[in-house]
Amino acid sequence: MDTRFSSAIHILIMIAGSAQPLTSETIANSVGSNPSYIRKVTGLLKKKGILDSRQGIHGFSLLVPPEALSLCSIYQAINESDEVHVFDLHQNPNDACVVGRHIRPVLAETFRGIEEKAERQLRQTTLADCMDKMRIRIGEEQ
Amino acid sequence: MDTRFSSAIHILIMIAGSAQPLTSETIANSVGSNPSYIRKVTGLLKKKGILDSRQGIHGFSLLVPPEALSLCSIYQAINESDEVHVFDLHQNPNDACVVGRHIRPVLAETFRGIEEKAERQLRQTTLADCMDKMRIRIGEEQ
Repeated sequence: MDTRFSSAIHILIMIAGSAQPLTSETIANSVGSNPSYIRKVTGLLKKKGILDSRQGIHGFSLLVPPEALSLCSIYQAINESDEVHVFDLHQNPNDACVVGRHIRPVLAETFRGIEEKAERQLRQTTLADCMDKMRIRIGEEQ
Repeated sequence: MDTRFSSAIHILIMIAGSAQPLTSETIANSVGSNPSYIRKVTGLLKKKGILDSRQGIHGFSLLVPPEALSLCSIYQAINESDEVHVFDLHQNPNDACVVGRHIRPVLAETFRGIEEKAERQLRQTTLADCMDKMRIRIGEEQ
């Protein structure tokens, strides 16, 4: 199970919503993980210019406003790929068998439609949309 | 990486297209896996009434015609769940934090639209559609 995407959104909501600088330790405590995992995920987000962590100051800052940060950009940063993968393909089908030789392109073509729709939807959804949903739930809680 | 779904489609195409009974060994050779993995996947398909393997005879038979077997049914059998999951959620966010407390329902709601679209598309695609795509590629190869 790859939960880095889901964790990355959690991390970014925390950073976007906090007036104080947050450390990896504080974030890990909320995500339910450890600081080294948080640094791995934030490292991927920094590489894509989504986050910054300034030298000498503990904490991260968001370089893209939540309204302009699509879930697709987050997904791509985390997966270090421009493509959205929905279903994994098995890696080593046997080329000597006619089914084995063609199965991966057949399934890639079959899954592509789903992946394109997923990508479009991730592109249309921003971090701000997730924060709005969260605000509603927090409001309902009170 | 969970490639059981992709492997299951491979297995079912082989079984649907073979005039001879196929053993786990033959199938494993094409999938690029081992017989015990194939028996694990076929076990899940048998449980849902998609496959049969008759006692005393080595080999599997398809109980649902390829035209009537949707990729959604295969997916559900393999995942032992009626729901299509597209993105995994992190498991242990901290309820003591306001973000940690709400992140899973917020992301579940955000991802639901993508999952519903994926499910609809899997429901509309059959094993026969995949076999048709494969036949075209085999034809082009010759």
